[in-house]
Amino acid sequence: MAKQNAFYAQSGGVTAVINASACGVIETARQHSDQIGTVYAGRNGIIGALTEELIDTSVLSDAEVAALRHTPGGAFGSCRYKLKDIETHRSQYERLIEVFKAHDIGYFFYNGGNDSADTCLKVSQLAESMGYPLKAVHIPKTVDNDLPVTDNCPGFGSVAKYIAVSTKEAALDIESMCATSTKVFILEVMGRHAGWIAAAGGLAGRGEGEPPHLIIFPEIPFDRGTVMARVDDCVKKYGYCVIVISEGARYADGTFLADAGTTDAFGHKQLGGVAPTLAGMVKQDLGYKYHWAVADYLQRSARHLSSATDVAQAYAVGKAAVKLALEGKNSVMPTILRTNDAPYQWEIGEACLSDIANVEKFMPRDYITPDGFGISALGRQYLAPLIQGEDFPPYKDGMPQYIRLQHKLVSRKLPDFQP
Amino acid sequence: MAKQNAFYAQSGGVTAVINASACGVIETARQHSDQIGTVYAGRNGIIGALTEELIDTSVLSDAEVAALRHTPGGAFGSCRYKLKDIETHRSQYERLIEVFKAHDIGYFFYNGGNDSADTCLKVSQLAESMGYPLKAVHIPKTVDNDLPVTDNCPGFGSVAKYIAVSTKEAALDIESMCATSTKVFILEVMGRHAGWIAAAGGLAGRGEGEPPHLIIFPEIPFDRGTVMARVDDCVKKYGYCVIVISEGARYADGTFLADAGTTDAFGHKQLGGVAPTLAGMVKQDLGYKYHWAVADYLQRSARHLSSATDVAQAYAVGKAAVKLALEGKNSVMPTILRTNDAPYQWEIGEACLSDIANVEKFMPRDYITPDGFGISALGRQYLAPLIQGEDFPPYKDGMPQYIRLQHKLVSRKLPDFQP
Repeated sequence: MAKQNAFYAQSGGVTAVINASACGVIETARQHSDQIGTVYAGRNGIIGALTEELIDTSVLSDAEVAALRHTPGGAFGSCRYKLKDIETHRSQYERLIEVFKAHDIGYFFYNGGNDSADTCLKVSQLAESMGYPLKAVHIPKTVDNDLPVTDNCPGFGSVAKYIAVSTKEAALDIESMCATSTKVFILEVMGRHAGWIAAAGGLAGRGEGEPPHLIIFPEIPFDRGTVMARVDDCVKKYGYCVIVISEGARYADGTFLADAGTTDAFGHKQLGGVAPTLAGMVKQDLGYKYHWAVADYLQRSARHLSSATDVAQAYAVGKAAVKLALEGKNSVMPTILRTNDAPYQWEIGEACLSDIANVEKFMPRDYITPDGFGISALGRQYLAPLIQGEDFPPYKDGMPQYIRLQHKLVSRKLPDFQP
Repeated sequence: MAKQNAFYAQSGGVTAVINASACGVIETARQHSDQIGTVYAGRNGIIGALTEELIDTSVLSDAEVAALRHTPGGAFGSCRYKLKDIETHRSQYERLIEVFKAHDIGYFFYNGGNDSADTCLKVSQLAESMGYPLKAVHIPKTVDNDLPVTDNCPGFGSVAKYIAVSTKEAALDIESMCATSTKVFILEVMGRHAGWIAAAGGLAGRGEGEPPHLIIFPEIPFDRGTVMARVDDCVKKYGYCVIVISEGARYADGTFLADAGTTDAFGHKQLGGVAPTLAGMVKQDLGYKYHWAVADYLQRSARHLSSATDVAQAYAVGKAAVKLALEGKNSVMPTILRTNDAPYQWEIGEACLSDIANVEKFMPRDYITPDGFGISALGRQYLAPLIQGEDFPPYKDGMPQYIRLQHKLVSRKLPDFQP
């Protein structure tokens, strides 16, 4: 196989460890410099491929590449941009192939969630139909943990650890003060359709009586009367009540508790503000003093508290993607296989993109307690290993030493293109 | 001096390091067991003294006491409860002295902010007027950093580090995505009247062009037009805008941007929700896509990210309080004296409570840039040392190992009292 260049792009919401995957891709490619030339990174994700804005990663020192492993955010830029339908917008896909051709790109690594898995699959199929030899490998990434087949998704373990630790810490605060002050604390967490992140809050305690006292999942229809009765019971029994609520909490008819009314580029509703909404109900129905927090981007960028397991897996899927491509695999995604629960053991597997694209994995009902407000033993068994281990970034003068790359763009060879 | 017992109580909002002060008190008292008998801790702060609910700390193992150093929240319970006016409610103060007398308490250590410094002073004065020998020492604690005389307050350094790191991490996230997604990010931080915590966000960057692009201080009157123009300029220039805003942000007439309309036990207005309020202005005036976070209790309980400097100082003021009392000092507070800026050096000083009680320290205007939206070189010089060093708690199974004490109450000797 002749030596060819590679293209790597980050897609969708970034995570604390997506750059660890980038690090895995670039370091592994450098180890196979006989087969892979330069790794080009798309500036702002797939848009960079369409506009031919390719970042030359060959100018990065080994130390700079290594620093990606401990740097949150998307070092090359990411985007919320879904390629349009291939039937009606074939030119977009053809443009990608043109750009790949112009820069002798034979490997396409796309680092993202469900939507990008779908794009990766389509690009692979189009390349094949156009007779362009391309190895397209998807690299899993999503804090939402909602990709199928893989046991878990890189990015999730770190946000899970952040939410579990934050819940535990805030609960100690509230417990200290509840006799005379705040009795109800509400933490809003991410997870539009799947309650994985909310579930991670459950790791703060060991169940009954230990905070969080209530987890509100998007999978369990919200009933105001039931929830308020539980909160009231909890305050009467324990003196306080800690609630972790998913931004995607919704009523039985599917209406979100807090619907900001705007949609993102993928057509998903932009949510936010479910915590103050719930706090308002507590005030109105129960009259307890409350506080609420919305972690928002803090939770998915908190590299200072990443799970060592998550960092290792994010790196491993990046590395595996390159290995798979070099083995000639196409339209695949490296997965994380759990081979043992306690002690937790995992290895890298492989899935066909056709089994991944646009499929969302929800929390199994039996990971949630029968009453719908906590995690079951089975849920705990699944979640607990994912937050194991610490992987602190280096610090200097009290601050983590994250890297910000200078982006050296490759000279363009093609005419402009309006994506 | 005959051997007497000590009383220790936590007051007001707890912090990530108030227990480190408790640890300093108890460990130091144990080292002077010839002079100090048992350290009793007030259950839920000063209320525990009024109701004669005294926690016997002598049953705690040395390891349990040592674990307080790395445990957030208030291990003995704190309270928002201000003793009433001594002229009209003298019986409250007399009750305290009765309880102290009944349990042979000769040392009173009160760990809190402005309000508790005032209480500590009054108790000391009353004891003297009643001829009861009491050494009353206040131990500084407040995330708001608004106590006078002392260079800084234990509790502040850790929240400062949390806000600086969180701002830096979130900014990397937003920068990654701003080409196609969120352009304005707003982080709401604590600090009712003083902008110290908001200022700490400034440590995330080095100034001009580096996030946070705007800090909104309670000390600088909020002008919607000016702020929106700055946000717009920033997005046009850098592609995105990161804003750290104090919960106490207010208009020129003193009205808070977000006034929840409720007050706490001290009569302070309970704030919250300034971030969504500002986000609404961004949406209405500029139309940019925004996200907002409210860190709330997460910021003051984040022991996982404490400043090692802060932990050391919190411990040191607890230790110094005992030393001062043993030297026969009364109505005093150990302070932190900055003896050098770079390298940062500090030592423990001493202040009279009459100089501390009910005095609030605001951000000096020259710590803020002339335009009112950032920290000056002077401000940076003051703040930077306070976040230095990491002091990670021990972890097990991915979670910090915080201690929750069993409270063994001492047998009551007095009739009931309704505080």
